[in-house]
Amino acid sequence: MANTNSNGGKKPFSDAKIIERANLLRDNDLYFFFRAIEETEASTVTVKGKKQIMIGSNNYLGLTHHPAVKEAAIKAVEKYGTGCTGSRFLNGNLNIHEELDEKLAAYLGHEKAIVFSTGMQANLGALSAICGPKDLMLFDSENHASIIDASRLSLGTTFKYKHNDMASLEELLESNMSRFNRVIIVADGVFSMTGDILRLPEVVKLAKKYGAYVYVDDAHGLGVMGPQGRGTMAHFDVTKDVDFNMGTFSKSFASIGGVISGSKDAIDYVRHSARSFMFSASMPPAAVATVSACIDVVQNDETILNNLWSNVEFMRNGFKELGFFTYGSQTPIIPLFIGDDMKALKMTKWLESKGVFCTPVLPPAVPKGETLIRTSYMASHNREDLSTVLEVFAEAKKIFDIPNHLH
Amino acid sequence: MANTNSNGGKKPFSDAKIIERANLLRDNDLYFFFRAIEETEASTVTVKGKKQIMIGSNNYLGLTHHPAVKEAAIKAVEKYGTGCTGSRFLNGNLNIHEELDEKLAAYLGHEKAIVFSTGMQANLGALSAICGPKDLMLFDSENHASIIDASRLSLGTTFKYKHNDMASLEELLESNMSRFNRVIIVADGVFSMTGDILRLPEVVKLAKKYGAYVYVDDAHGLGVMGPQGRGTMAHFDVTKDVDFNMGTFSKSFASIGGVISGSKDAIDYVRHSARSFMFSASMPPAAVATVSACIDVVQNDETILNNLWSNVEFMRNGFKELGFFTYGSQTPIIPLFIGDDMKALKMTKWLESKGVFCTPVLPPAVPKGETLIRTSYMASHNREDLSTVLEVFAEAKKIFDIPNHLH
Repeated sequence: MANTNSNGGKKPFSDAKIIERANLLRDNDLYFFFRAIEETEASTVTVKGKKQIMIGSNNYLGLTHHPAVKEAAIKAVEKYGTGCTGSRFLNGNLNIHEELDEKLAAYLGHEKAIVFSTGMQANLGALSAICGPKDLMLFDSENHASIIDASRLSLGTTFKYKHNDMASLEELLESNMSRFNRVIIVADGVFSMTGDILRLPEVVKLAKKYGAYVYVDDAHGLGVMGPQGRGTMAHFDVTKDVDFNMGTFSKSFASIGGVISGSKDAIDYVRHSARSFMFSASMPPAAVATVSACIDVVQNDETILNNLWSNVEFMRNGFKELGFFTYGSQTPIIPLFIGDDMKALKMTKWLESKGVFCTPVLPPAVPKGETLIRTSYMASHNREDLSTVLEVFAEAKKIFDIPNHLH
Repeated sequence: MANTNSNGGKKPFSDAKIIERANLLRDNDLYFFFRAIEETEASTVTVKGKKQIMIGSNNYLGLTHHPAVKEAAIKAVEKYGTGCTGSRFLNGNLNIHEELDEKLAAYLGHEKAIVFSTGMQANLGALSAICGPKDLMLFDSENHASIIDASRLSLGTTFKYKHNDMASLEELLESNMSRFNRVIIVADGVFSMTGDILRLPEVVKLAKKYGAYVYVDDAHGLGVMGPQGRGTMAHFDVTKDVDFNMGTFSKSFASIGGVISGSKDAIDYVRHSARSFMFSASMPPAAVATVSACIDVVQNDETILNNLWSNVEFMRNGFKELGFFTYGSQTPIIPLFIGDDMKALKMTKWLESKGVFCTPVLPPAVPKGETLIRTSYMASHNREDLSTVLEVFAEAKKIFDIPNHLH
């Protein structure tokens, strides 16, 4: 019972290592978390009264402020009120939830889909439902936190394979298929920090060879990758070979919530078994209507995706020309290798002073010594702002002596 | 590898027991899940074109359709857009999130509060953060599903005590305090199915005696219990003795999201450690504004809580006079003991045909042979509708021969 205080003899929380670290950053004015945004127009934000170009968001299509999307949200509040006050299972299921399920199934190209209240809850609920005590999850070492938590919630076993390494995955499949009831390969479609794309065609091939299920967390691919933004499985044209596709609405679709799609039987099983689906209130009407409107916009207005990819190419080439190491990114997420933690924090502060909002990614989110600055781009960024960003980074590269290569 | 099908040798999901049961209900037209609500005015809903009196909701204050609440949600969409597309930790933190944190802390009477994206995520994140590998959670056997999942996510130990049984709790405290670093007593403030109130003053006394933390999940108490709806801890005037108070916004506060409040240090620790807080997108602007407006309404318009409690008393007395067993409920949740599963399902169907929407609660949510129909009341129910409900239940009691006592 070390470190007790006068608080009734209870061990306090203030001496946790994580708080020491937060206090160190706060004391040095290098604390870049919980920056309060006062105003926003998607690709620009105002923080502490100062307008900044936002290159630290997941708002890839820039639809949070699209007039048709906002109008749909407002109409839903007017018609259905502000919340559903219950789970879809019991009393919180509106006809617009059911319609969104169907619209998403058609859009994604799967038999059936169901929407959850958050993307995190979609992963937690679906994975812990489909991976039972006799089952095995094989997952990529760079998967999102919510998948790691899902593996802890699941009663099954989890083994990790090396990031996007098919030999490592096959080794695990070969040695474990006969030992488990079901084997489920689980991986991000687009990896959130490095912007890497999953080698999905190879994953699908291995899954077929060994009789494993494939589960893709396409949080950062939905709305962005493939024709009309149908996601990573559409990008590779392997939709029918993906058993479960998970997506979030808190990125390209300007809302909150998540979706799991797959076969009719599998999704019927998930909606009767996923605890985070059955025991949590449903998406509010405005959030449902927002997603529905976003799907319409991205399907009907091709300028949105054209603008996005043109902006991405402009920035990727720009950073390469400046000599930044961008991890071979092929997506709207362009990470810039910095290396040293303190350098990344000081540079973030300097960038902020020049009107650029971005986020440093420190260990343990990345390996030690591989701190990066994560940048990401939107359909709604204008070229003038993006040119300003490149000019600012050109100067930063010199001031902070940023290396051209990893290590 | 029994039960494989032609699906590449993979074990299907359609033969799960839970699907057999769902199919049985569907085949007999007794499937009351996922009823799609076409229109809603809070206390009435339209399903399959038929208007019904809603007594199966958690919308206790009936604020989902309150004009001031809807207006606040709409203005937030207009000003901040439809979503935040990132976690509060990184890029999804608006000034209105920070303001809501502060407003909730003041309203609840704790030093600090933070809002999560869902109530479930508040429990999952906070409990798994504060209950580390050397810690122990003691929890009530009737706690909500999200607390059970949190105990699975946490690296600590969990022991269950008998529902609201202080001798059972003290036994566990006595035999375990010296074996663990921290001991945290975790219980619902108002239990979701039976409407029971936690014996919080006794819990607090035991916690003080043994040096344990107290964590209250007040999902069904927030907005309802205590002066101005400040919750179960305010109802018993023990706010300063509760270390952590959790609330949801998807019930009385007509939105989605959750809150954890407590001491400054403890909440600072939670917001740097709770994975469901750091790795999940923040509450959308409309959801934030909704909660803020609900707090204003319940604080400024005392008719809301007066109407609620007057309706509750009317219904409780009504059901008692009809001879239903109501589990001694003292809250807006009034459970009615039915006993037999099939009887409860058939009665729900009959009630629906008479224009009453309520939900049967079957095992495993309740012990075998103790199936109940959960009813709950709102400030916005009018007396005429409630009288109709009582008339319909009077008839149902005779038709379905409902017992007057438990067993």
